[in-house]
Amino acid sequence: MQKIQDIRHSFAHILALSVKELYPDARFGTGPDIENGFYYDIKTKNPVTNDDLKRIEKKMREVLKRNVSFKKKLVAKAEAKKIFKDQPFKLEILKDLEGDKVSVYETDNFIDLCKGPHVDSTEELNPDAFKLEKIAGAYFKGDEKNSMLTRIYGLAFATKKELDDYLKLKEEAEKRDHRVLGEKLGIFMFDDEVGSGLPLWLAKGTLLRNIIKDYLYRELISDGYDFVETPHIGKLSLWQTSGHWENYRENIYSPIDIEDEKFLLKPMNCPFHVKIFKHKQRSYRELPLKMAEFGTVYRFERSGTLHGLTRVRGFTQDDAHVWCREDQLKTELAKLLKQGLKILKKFGFKEYSIYLSTRPEKYVGTDQGWEKATATLEQVLKDAKLEYNIDPGGGVFYGPKIDIKVKDTLGREWQCTTIQVDFNLPDRFQMSFINDKGEKERPYMIHRALYGSLERFIGVLIEHYAGAFPFWLSPVQIKILPVSDKFNKYAREIKEELKEYRAEVAEEKETISKKIREGEMEKIPYLLIVGEKEKKAKTISVRKRGKGDLGAMKIKKFKEIINKE
Amino acid sequence: MQKIQDIRHSFAHILALSVKELYPDARFGTGPDIENGFYYDIKTKNPVTNDDLKRIEKKMREVLKRNVSFKKKLVAKAEAKKIFKDQPFKLEILKDLEGDKVSVYETDNFIDLCKGPHVDSTEELNPDAFKLEKIAGAYFKGDEKNSMLTRIYGLAFATKKELDDYLKLKEEAEKRDHRVLGEKLGIFMFDDEVGSGLPLWLAKGTLLRNIIKDYLYRELISDGYDFVETPHIGKLSLWQTSGHWENYRENIYSPIDIEDEKFLLKPMNCPFHVKIFKHKQRSYRELPLKMAEFGTVYRFERSGTLHGLTRVRGFTQDDAHVWCREDQLKTELAKLLKQGLKILKKFGFKEYSIYLSTRPEKYVGTDQGWEKATATLEQVLKDAKLEYNIDPGGGVFYGPKIDIKVKDTLGREWQCTTIQVDFNLPDRFQMSFINDKGEKERPYMIHRALYGSLERFIGVLIEHYAGAFPFWLSPVQIKILPVSDKFNKYAREIKEELKEYRAEVAEEKETISKKIREGEMEKIPYLLIVGEKEKKAKTISVRKRGKGDLGAMKIKKFKEIINKE
Repeated sequence: MQKIQDIRHSFAHILALSVKELYPDARFGTGPDIENGFYYDIKTKNPVTNDDLKRIEKKMREVLKRNVSFKKKLVAKAEAKKIFKDQPFKLEILKDLEGDKVSVYETDNFIDLCKGPHVDSTEELNPDAFKLEKIAGAYFKGDEKNSMLTRIYGLAFATKKELDDYLKLKEEAEKRDHRVLGEKLGIFMFDDEVGSGLPLWLAKGTLLRNIIKDYLYRELISDGYDFVETPHIGKLSLWQTSGHWENYRENIYSPIDIEDEKFLLKPMNCPFHVKIFKHKQRSYRELPLKMAEFGTVYRFERSGTLHGLTRVRGFTQDDAHVWCREDQLKTELAKLLKQGLKILKKFGFKEYSIYLSTRPEKYVGTDQGWEKATATLEQVLKDAKLEYNIDPGGGVFYGPKIDIKVKDTLGREWQCTTIQVDFNLPDRFQMSFINDKGEKERPYMIHRALYGSLERFIGVLIEHYAGAFPFWLSPVQIKILPVSDKFNKYAREIKEELKEYRAEVAEEKETISKKIREGEMEKIPYLLIVGEKEKKAKTISVRKRGKGDLGAMKIKKFKEIINKE
Repeated sequence: MQKIQDIRHSFAHILALSVKELYPDARFGTGPDIENGFYYDIKTKNPVTNDDLKRIEKKMREVLKRNVSFKKKLVAKAEAKKIFKDQPFKLEILKDLEGDKVSVYETDNFIDLCKGPHVDSTEELNPDAFKLEKIAGAYFKGDEKNSMLTRIYGLAFATKKELDDYLKLKEEAEKRDHRVLGEKLGIFMFDDEVGSGLPLWLAKGTLLRNIIKDYLYRELISDGYDFVETPHIGKLSLWQTSGHWENYRENIYSPIDIEDEKFLLKPMNCPFHVKIFKHKQRSYRELPLKMAEFGTVYRFERSGTLHGLTRVRGFTQDDAHVWCREDQLKTELAKLLKQGLKILKKFGFKEYSIYLSTRPEKYVGTDQGWEKATATLEQVLKDAKLEYNIDPGGGVFYGPKIDIKVKDTLGREWQCTTIQVDFNLPDRFQMSFINDKGEKERPYMIHRALYGSLERFIGVLIEHYAGAFPFWLSPVQIKILPVSDKFNKYAREIKEELKEYRAEVAEEKETISKKIREGEMEKIPYLLIVGEKEKKAKTISVRKRGKGDLGAMKIKKFKEIINKE
């Protein structure tokens, strides 16, 4: 059986061949396989639009029926120049190729400059398992100084079922798109004049953030963590000492000059926490010393890679550092792993994959140190009887790590929890504690984030729940809907009785059916309708999200229901 | 009676005269009066040190007894050059003076280039009402390219009592210095490698911040405010539109370049809040729209002016904006004023001064707009029957304001609450709402901060309470001190019973007297001692801060006491 990449790549050639038949003047850029499909960049006198996709698709099916083969040939460069004399982009690509000979693929009357591999013939391509998807503009070689080409995207799979499944998943994912829901539910917004990748949190989003932060805050305070708060800028030299400047600079923003010194918008919190550790001489009695912060960090991402809340330029980590003695390391790591899994479960993620990431290409520290730390992490996973994958070279420059990726309702994986062993920063910052023999000793350092980034975590939560958050997590848990103005006062009394919950009264001058519709659109767990009947009987009529009418009841009864949530 | 400034300025000359007699080679810079006293910058071959101050003071008293007069003369510049031929700094100053003639003052055998005024003779200077204070280095004309001179500082008042009162206040203020207490109580720290003016909040400080923020958060949520959270950077153009870039640039840090666009570390939150207001069409039904954020802003201050938490380079404002219709303006301002005073009272500030600040030199908007807004603010103060002072020209560039300065225990004034009317930003950002006639209308905008800056507010609170915070505000309210290890378990049980409070157990291996001493140093409101006797009787022995031993009691009884706090 053919590799799916070869199938997709071959579809790209069939696309080009079909475009050539429909648009004889077409000039071709490149056409690779990509995730779920393929694309081809082309230039035609009459630009191809989305309206033309059906026609091109039809032509492709026609071509597939012809039973065409993919023939590879090695030709001299001079020969290739002749073949592609009418294809300026191909000639351009040809210039960059090394060696005397290049490979070309011939498919019917279309010949392409291409390394391959491909399927042998169109018999291996299922005409029901592909679909042209959309059109976009793309600069040749991705450089805006070059011509703008039209990129035609296609989806392609081995079987029709796979294509159908993918389309269904995509449709479902679009319905859950956190960028759309986040705006609709009043959670966050972006604004071009503020800047790309910089979310502004609206009232309900800020509430949601606070609920999520509060939950972890309480967990960590009762677990003996110290919460700290550190600045958003600091001297560049801090990150030179930590090694981030050398190993991570491409993600750090340009320095700010203050009185002839360079300051960075903080790309990570660690050096500040180290400074707090170091501000007094620590004793072994203080270890494990656990320090946490909801620390907002800023990291450069190209504007093309930004995506809603899941890839931003500034985000808040639920960051923490644990310093401990060598003999405490395994126990502390095991606790952190357990805590991470507990928290993900609390937020409704039942499935996850665990990755153990080993030494990357750019790293600091000794091989021995790396081996020992990696072995400790692996032992912790084994002791907990957890399945895990190895991610070779996926570690941070200062040490190996365990990552937990959660699976959302649609089965997509999202990086959340990370637990990283670091035996390098303590060295670089010359950290020490006085051990039980009265001598100075270097502590071990663990970096960990459970949610990861609050922004991404909330983005994932929105999609996971399609905006219908569980009761405890809903920014507004209860909305009280007076049937008319006359019952606003009674509605406010009900709100007062429910003051330990997040309840709102809908006092707008709207019909009750519009109020119900709006409450449902806002995905509020409980809507309480109050009118003449309810006021008289001192009851409320309860509608539960996804369940509908629960009937009229006393507040006490309603509280019993929601206390079970 | 002489003005105190003239007295202080005259003391400066007496200082110079005395130095000249003791150090005949002395070269003089300038010697003005300052707050609480005076200084003179001098250069001598043998540098004057702090050890010499007593001797100089003695000489000054000798001079004062001589009954010397201060004689003013107008002399031609050429004549002045001759007089000061041996005084290079005076010649330097002379160059910068305009006009043909200059004034000099003669006091005994000292003659100074000086505009005056002065007292007539030393008879008007009380020899018991001055004191030389300290020595510092100072560049001539404040320019580091010039010579370094020795600055001798002196205190001077009209009467001995005033001097004594000042010295007493200073001693008391030093004991309360938040920079010392803040470190000792584990509230915050600074670190040279992090950067000047950038506090790092330690565990207890972060707790204190959270208590202070939580209190206001609850107040504002129940008052219908929307809390939002906005980024720490944004495009430069936002503050160009707001006018801050033009009118406030000296306090804004240099821009950061991101993909060829300039971003600022936010100097203020307003443009973000405006963006949130504008992200949908607002209706008059939504007004007053109240938006709050604990927003951290960064503003440049020269390193020389930084001071602990009270003058920093990054601070968190309890920022809020209220948008309303013109006819709602007065009511909203009155509510904000009331809320401001309520909150200051909650934090133990009983005295305050109110200032109404009018149009500054740099401003935007029309004269008519300024007059109307200022009149509205003044009317609000009059309606509330509050005394106030006018601060002419003290307004912000976009509008007039009311400031409240609290008086701390030592009678010092601190700027906290500010309420600012703004009829300009809504114009500049083209804000609108749909009024009840279905037309677009420009809203009014109020900027307000009640604490002001959380950093300064906490600095002031530490000094106001000398670190002994009231019960509700104490990061640790209760500390349970087991007499020995044996009672750690019982201590933890007590902590569990007090879990609605912020309680700690002192499990260190220390004697009980050391534990008590430490608890007192940490200024914890209640210390609970538990040993054999208490464990058996299921009681605790209570020590109240500032009161001492309250005896043994049951937890229930103790809860009754603290619930009255």
